[in-house]
Amino acid sequence: MDGNPTWLYQLSKKGKLCIPAMNVNDSVTKQKFDNLYCCKESIVDGLKRTTDVMFGGKQVVVCGYGEVGKGSCAALKALGAIVYVTEVDPICALQACMDGFRVITLTEIIRQVDMVITCTGNRNIVGREHFDKMKSGCIVCNMGHSNTEIDLVNVLRTTELKWQRVRPHVDHIVWPDGKRVILLAEGRLLNLSCSTVPSFVLSITATTQALALIELYNAPDGRYKQDIYLLPKKMDEYVASLHLPTFDAHLTELTDDQAKYLGISKYGPFKPNYYR
Amino acid sequence: MDGNPTWLYQLSKKGKLCIPAMNVNDSVTKQKFDNLYCCKESIVDGLKRTTDVMFGGKQVVVCGYGEVGKGSCAALKALGAIVYVTEVDPICALQACMDGFRVITLTEIIRQVDMVITCTGNRNIVGREHFDKMKSGCIVCNMGHSNTEIDLVNVLRTTELKWQRVRPHVDHIVWPDGKRVILLAEGRLLNLSCSTVPSFVLSITATTQALALIELYNAPDGRYKQDIYLLPKKMDEYVASLHLPTFDAHLTELTDDQAKYLGISKYGPFKPNYYR
Amino acid sequence: MDGNPTWLYQLSKKGKLCIPAMNVNDSVTKQKFDNLYCCKESIVDGLKRTTDVMFGGKQVVVCGYGEVGKGSCAALKALGAIVYVTEVDPICALQACMDGFRVITLTEIIRQVDMVITCTGNRNIVGREHFDKMKSGCIVCNMGHSNTEIDLVNVLRTTELKWQRVRPHVDHIVWPDGKRVILLAEGRLLNLSCSTVPSFVLSITATTQALALIELYNAPDGRYKQDIYLLPKKMDEYVASLHLPTFDAHLTELTDDQAKYLGISKYGPFKPNYYR
Amino acid sequence: MDGNPTWLYQLSKKGKLCIPAMNVNDSVTKQKFDNLYCCKESIVDGLKRTTDVMFGGKQVVVCGYGEVGKGSCAALKALGAIVYVTEVDPICALQACMDGFRVITLTEIIRQVDMVITCTGNRNIVGREHFDKMKSGCIVCNMGHSNTEIDLVNVLRTTELKWQRVRPHVDHIVWPDGKRVILLAEGRLLNLSCSTVPSFVLSITATTQALALIELYNAPDGRYKQDIYLLPKKMDEYVASLHLPTFDAHLTELTDDQAKYLGISKYGPFKPNYYR
Repeated sequence: MDGNPTWLYQLSKKGKLCIPAMNVNDSVTKQKFDNLYCCKESIVDGLKRTTDVMFGGKQVVVCGYGEVGKGSCAALKALGAIVYVTEVDPICALQACMDGFRVITLTEIIRQVDMVITCTGNRNIVGREHFDKMKSGCIVCNMGHSNTEIDLVNVLRTTELKWQRVRPHVDHIVWPDGKRVILLAEGRLLNLSCSTVPSFVLSITATTQALALIELYNAPDGRYKQDIYLLPKKMDEYVASLHLPTFDAHLTELTDDQAKYLGISKYGPFKPNYYR
Repeated sequence: MDGNPTWLYQLSKKGKLCIPAMNVNDSVTKQKFDNLYCCKESIVDGLKRTTDVMFGGKQVVVCGYGEVGKGSCAALKALGAIVYVTEVDPICALQACMDGFRVITLTEIIRQVDMVITCTGNRNIVGREHFDKMKSGCIVCNMGHSNTEIDLVNVLRTTELKWQRVRPHVDHIVWPDGKRVILLAEGRLLNLSCSTVPSFVLSITATTQALALIELYNAPDGRYKQDIYLLPKKMDEYVASLHLPTFDAHLTELTDDQAKYLGISKYGPFKPNYYR
Repeated sequence: MDGNPTWLYQLSKKGKLCIPAMNVNDSVTKQKFDNLYCCKESIVDGLKRTTDVMFGGKQVVVCGYGEVGKGSCAALKALGAIVYVTEVDPICALQACMDGFRVITLTEIIRQVDMVITCTGNRNIVGREHFDKMKSGCIVCNMGHSNTEIDLVNVLRTTELKWQRVRPHVDHIVWPDGKRVILLAEGRLLNLSCSTVPSFVLSITATTQALALIELYNAPDGRYKQDIYLLPKKMDEYVASLHLPTFDAHLTELTDDQAKYLGISKYGPFKPNYYR
Repeated sequence: MDGNPTWLYQLSKKGKLCIPAMNVNDSVTKQKFDNLYCCKESIVDGLKRTTDVMFGGKQVVVCGYGEVGKGSCAALKALGAIVYVTEVDPICALQACMDGFRVITLTEIIRQVDMVITCTGNRNIVGREHFDKMKSGCIVCNMGHSNTEIDLVNVLRTTELKWQRVRPHVDHIVWPDGKRVILLAEGRLLNLSCSTVPSFVLSITATTQALALIELYNAPDGRYKQDIYLLPKKMDEYVASLHLPTFDAHLTELTDDQAKYLGISKYGPFKPNYYR
């Protein structure tokens, strides 16, 4: 389920990719549904099921404002939390600003927040220096990818900190002075460990993956080399169209005249490949 | 200001492009700021200045759920309007559904709406058959591009309809039975005709355009051919970083270890070119 | 927990109230926190835990737009649902309109919705004629009070409908043609049966109730007769002030000059008793 | 238009009220529509028309979280501003927290905000010590009542500060070091001076006032003494019902059985008088 394609591109760079591959993770439907919309649902679900936390009035820092961060921030803000964002990428940082979030470093804000949520796809985001400054009762969880965002072994698996398993997926980490930090799913993905994933989103992801495999299998010799490709836009649109009846959504059809004006086919693809 | 690059690609397809060109419109900063964020501000501003309309409880149909449509819908919904969306592209349609908008055809909804807003970049979106079904008092405006979305000449410039200019940019079009439709800016762009554009957004657009020109001018021979290019990601990020101090935003810097893990430079570009 | 004071006023009307009583339910803190804010949290929690439903794009009808309905609608809309409201009270109906919800009768909308949520404090809101028109898969639950909003015995406990318990608090009710309606908690309160109530909200409610009892006990003879009273505003404000440190909220203090201008004490009460 | 009834109650306390009066300002329709919903619309309109300010990413402090403050905060947050609240009343402060706003004193936050909006109904909210700490370019305006919230004469009408009228309703106040603060409408009500008021809201207010006058005129001798009364709930509901057709809203009618269960008439009043 964790579709981060970083390792695929690294394999390719090293010349070790021996078959054609499709980067399904960066197709529009996958990006928006599996990442943005799904996380918007599961951040709420995962936190409620594990901690029963009330969102109203809580101060939360979300590390990373990619699709996962955007979905998480939108849901938390909508339910009354006060959300801060950390970012390394100036484009995403500027988007966070325009969406109404303060962009700040983790060190500046860590003392006052009630929750820390990592959504970076990177590693060692929350270090011991941050844990030491958290308030007692602060909740820490990972929505990003794999379990590297919080470096457990070096940071929290030390002799002076006591671990107490209070219920499945919920550990209290107790400092010598009695301070408790609440770690969810031992830093693994909250959305996969502690919440359900809507079957609708799984259907989109599975359809995208199946179509990618069919395309690779059926493609005439030479269309794909030992490289990484994005899903053809037309297929991406087909995946979406298969899921519209769920919402009783009624598409408008281009007239011949309109299609000609836009210089595209009436039946798509409707946007250039890079469109998101 | 109207950055739609359709004609540029049509020129290129016909082999009539005689110099390298940058499609600045589809750079991330331009797309998100000039289109999404700017329209989110100016749809509200433009409608208020021209019509003093109250948004609460109003039923609105927005044609097109690209960046302009997304921004317009978000603002109108946030201020209490009930918003419906029309779309031709199933991906954008599915996004509209997930964002909480009914996707429906114009013909189905036209009788009950208080406002019609076109954001398609296409032409002849609102035809005479739609105008004839509108309620008296319905407001019609265009946020899309140029002035083709509403076909004035064939549709509204007819002898049986009377035009009354009630104030600058506001025409009442009067049907023989007394019904009035309120047309803004004669179907030209509302955001450019009837609202101000934030200087911040102009600064982003202008910076993007200036950097693109500098890049084209300075590039070594052979880097760019007679083709259309997207702005290099690195420059897009540079534009964003120049605008962060406005919001007192504090970027986080990658550690060497993190940059290595991601396989990127500490100083960007941080995302692949197709990322939005 | 169900604080509806209707029966108390009926008792009083009949002259059967033999001691003074405080209608704590209608104190501001109780109304807003136990009803509005708490339900905003628990509607999401209760639906996720029982059904794993995705909110994005779902069509929902909420019956009743009092505090409970307002909280439920706000949360569902914020998470991407399309929400319709039914109301009997024109003031609440007008508020729903201004907040961006279509006000409609249950009969008009029942065929197209994915969820029905009752928040009326009344009875027999969803009748057999509504159940018969629902789509297969429609979820029905009660956020209102007691278990009267859905008349189970006369409506769903009939021989031609089969009940299947699919997990705790979740019944599928199966029509002869195979249609399934998903009933939660057998029509009892979803927020109490299937979600947790934030301890913060319980603390507010319990503090309000304790202060009311202390006031009744300590009051000098004659202050309270055999009647129903609202909690004195001053105590209501005291309850709130005790809970502000949770959010690290910093109150502003009136200057002597400002208090004099307003004609109130610097230490409250700050609003007239009817203020909400 | 400024309906603050403080002076009316002060008159009554002093025994100087010589006729019966209705406090129309605190009827539900007036409170919610003229104050909450109207200000939600006009804060956006007033700021755009005077300053063309972009809301996205702006830091704003709103002084006072009554109905006017609630409406202003909701609109600004919805359009991407980061909003802080100051309050004297712990109940309103707690509501601000739950709605996702940091509650803080003006002195703590004044250095970092881009806008200061007063909504208190009190006086001398923004003092010289605050003005001196503002950033250059900070916008200051009043949504509260009359023009007392900002003490111009003692605070800004001093010799070392230069006033520059840059357009109607917009003054730059220039500090000796060149810092400029942008004062709107000389501290008078922004919503009345610089934005239009929706005719719908005026209709509600006027209907409420007319009905109150008719009631006072028609009432049998003895119904009203030389005191201040709230509008009878039934009339408040009538005002609302007259305005529902604007939104094509369809009320549900109570059945006889339901009305009996609730102990009320089928035709209202539907709520106790103190309900808001």
